[in-house]
Amino acid sequence: METIKKIGQEVRLCGWVNTRRDHGKIIFIDLRDRSGLLQLVGGEKLADLRSEDVIEAIGLVKKRPESMVNPKMPTGEVEVEVKEIKVLSKAQELPFDMGQEELKVSLPTLLDYRGLTLRHPKVQAIFKVQETIIAGFRESLKKQGFTEIQVPTIVPTATEGGAQVFKIKYFDKEAYLAQSPQLYKQIMVSVFERVFTLAHAYRAEPSITTRHMTEYLGLDAEMGFIESFEEIMDMVEIVMKEIFAKVARENETELKIFSVRLPKISGKIPRIKMREAQEIIFKRTGRNNRQEPDLEPEDEKEICRYALEEYGSDLIFITHYPTKKRPFYTYPDEKDPDYTNSFDLLGRGLEWVTGGRRINNYQMLLDHVKKWGNKPENFDLYLQAFKYGMPSEGGFCLGAERITMQILGLENVREASLFPRDMERVDMKLTQNSAVSSLRAKRSNLE
Amino acid sequence: METIKKIGQEVRLCGWVNTRRDHGKIIFIDLRDRSGLLQLVGGEKLADLRSEDVIEAIGLVKKRPESMVNPKMPTGEVEVEVKEIKVLSKAQELPFDMGQEELKVSLPTLLDYRGLTLRHPKVQAIFKVQETIIAGFRESLKKQGFTEIQVPTIVPTATEGGAQVFKIKYFDKEAYLAQSPQLYKQIMVSVFERVFTLAHAYRAEPSITTRHMTEYLGLDAEMGFIESFEEIMDMVEIVMKEIFAKVARENETELKIFSVRLPKISGKIPRIKMREAQEIIFKRTGRNNRQEPDLEPEDEKEICRYALEEYGSDLIFITHYPTKKRPFYTYPDEKDPDYTNSFDLLGRGLEWVTGGRRINNYQMLLDHVKKWGNKPENFDLYLQAFKYGMPSEGGFCLGAERITMQILGLENVREASLFPRDMERVDMKLTQNSAVSSLRAKRSNLE
Repeated sequence: METIKKIGQEVRLCGWVNTRRDHGKIIFIDLRDRSGLLQLVGGEKLADLRSEDVIEAIGLVKKRPESMVNPKMPTGEVEVEVKEIKVLSKAQELPFDMGQEELKVSLPTLLDYRGLTLRHPKVQAIFKVQETIIAGFRESLKKQGFTEIQVPTIVPTATEGGAQVFKIKYFDKEAYLAQSPQLYKQIMVSVFERVFTLAHAYRAEPSITTRHMTEYLGLDAEMGFIESFEEIMDMVEIVMKEIFAKVARENETELKIFSVRLPKISGKIPRIKMREAQEIIFKRTGRNNRQEPDLEPEDEKEICRYALEEYGSDLIFITHYPTKKRPFYTYPDEKDPDYTNSFDLLGRGLEWVTGGRRINNYQMLLDHVKKWGNKPENFDLYLQAFKYGMPSEGGFCLGAERITMQILGLENVREASLFPRDMERVDMKLTQNSAVSSLRAKRSNLE
Repeated sequence: METIKKIGQEVRLCGWVNTRRDHGKIIFIDLRDRSGLLQLVGGEKLADLRSEDVIEAIGLVKKRPESMVNPKMPTGEVEVEVKEIKVLSKAQELPFDMGQEELKVSLPTLLDYRGLTLRHPKVQAIFKVQETIIAGFRESLKKQGFTEIQVPTIVPTATEGGAQVFKIKYFDKEAYLAQSPQLYKQIMVSVFERVFTLAHAYRAEPSITTRHMTEYLGLDAEMGFIESFEEIMDMVEIVMKEIFAKVARENETELKIFSVRLPKISGKIPRIKMREAQEIIFKRTGRNNRQEPDLEPEDEKEICRYALEEYGSDLIFITHYPTKKRPFYTYPDEKDPDYTNSFDLLGRGLEWVTGGRRINNYQMLLDHVKKWGNKPENFDLYLQAFKYGMPSEGGFCLGAERITMQILGLENVREASLFPRDMERVDMKLTQNSAVSSLRAKRSNLE
């Protein structure tokens, strides 16, 4: 990308052959490096090159003739006339064409060849945006006085109940993979008041959907000394707006590749109760889910349409989910304890963020632990934090891959994970006990 | 902390009762919040307060008389005369005294009461420094053109050999917990050239030491297009210096609490080969480990003493470890293939960083995979990245807790982990199958 400023100079470039086009004896190479694409031009010297070869080229930067300028390429006004070329690493023949603007392969192929497909400029773009989203989350919370913490993922019990948890053989005992950093971030409110963490979360979901993976990255925050659960939604709003602003600033190129616009928010994000949402949906569609304890996927889509039409907002908070549908630590609404001070932030038809106020009174929390069928002795450390003084508190969580998917309009959340895992796939498609033989292999046959 | 500027004004403060001192009818409270400690003073109103109560106080900020100034406290020049007090959350009686400058409890007690002990100002300080170390790592690499990536921890095979890996029941199949993000960060060099990641790493070490845990946070980086493995050490040097500079800038208070100085580096960190180190140790101590394939813990301590005496450096690179002691992907030295282009950075007697150049030639890597007793079909995605063009590359890894421990001079790495895990402990000390009953419990007895 620096090359564009160096017309008339000799440059040394390293990168991958993205594409090759032959025009008689003249060969054009699009060279790819971490800054983007650049056109090389040369003759016979380039004849042996093929896609994904790693090369070093020395050449002269030239302004392209007006008619040859490529407006789609940020470096489209220049090209490099190659004087010397060296192949640093020769690529084998590709299993499919990587040179088109769109990588036209099926999802299984996209993942079976992840070591290759991640190099495609449009696939790369997804993870540049994701990096910005995560950095935006961190930066906005740091500005609001939050401390970043690191919490474990090996846990002694199922965090929020027994289902969908992975079991680990832990020496001669058992342990589990955390379904969320929930309990730890709550404990840390009693230490730093406001905390956030980036934590891998694991769900043994025995189903395959376009929205779920067995391992994902949670962007989790928790804050103490709140007056009401509205304050948590205020914080979510601040964070989301700063994430969008940062992506707009830093990922113009990537947003253009996907031809997407960032979510629209006009002023404050609307907040409505779940029961009100069901009422609105009933009025708009005649679909009577007014007795249901949760919104169905179709309801989520409909209420998002409503928010866009009525409030000009791509996002909407749904609040007051029923107490029995939320985890044991959720704060029941003081006026109507059958409903909770919890919320989901929906956007473009899907859940983006979930959060709420938590119970901070020790006795009440202990009662809830039992009422939800858990043994208090399995929550020792957690309960300590409340036994010895915990302020009113609450928090929220975003799924990093889910948000990336939603911002870029991807069809499947797996596209927003470098190496997605689901019931059937860990890198490659799983076969029964495929890994055991390797596990038994010695670390080194030289030892 | 803002309060110090508000002499004569009324303020509203929220926080925890850190300590209480009674002087006749006058009661002094040290209030703790996320910014530090502040003295409150009052009469009968404060009589019911005890340590760790969460309170809200309204009062008048006053300058203390000269004789009452506490120079050890950043807010020691002022105190707040309490007008109104409200207990937000009442604490139970503490199991031990949390009010002293040093928290004098044993390691098991420190961890059994983690929900409480983390609140102690000196314990908090550890994690403020850790936050800075991690942020310093990120910032320095971002400046050097690295992209932050997120890689999975559920893996299909034992990453670097078969031992010390945790097995997961993965639906009706098996999977493992990653011992490091090594293979994924290498793949990502072919995508972004320079990458870093913060990744949980898991080691099923069947032993208890002061330096090892079963789960830790690796700060991992990997870079392509290197001319030699010296460049990787150059990068480590840049990163370490920037981390130290950031800690010096942002954690003055915390460093003072621990009475420690940051590691000393005079110019370039010395770099010596492992065999030379053994020769030096032999000359200095008469200990003849010159045929050993690695440095013993005593050798590491001795060579660190040597570095400090000869070079005025708290840090020293040891290079060229034997090929057979390093993982299959390590690049053998071209002049002497029995030794590798690998290094450890030692500091104050212990390993801080490990790294090296990797094999980037597909055929050579494939040979090594087999030679080390692994099945190539278990490394499909990984090998793809090399099959389709990979530049020369290498990288390094720091353990976040280890570096924190070493900078602050902690005795046990567990002190540098919020919730440390080892063979015997996951939150609390493990008993056989303690968690199973909870796993069997239903998510909610209300459903």
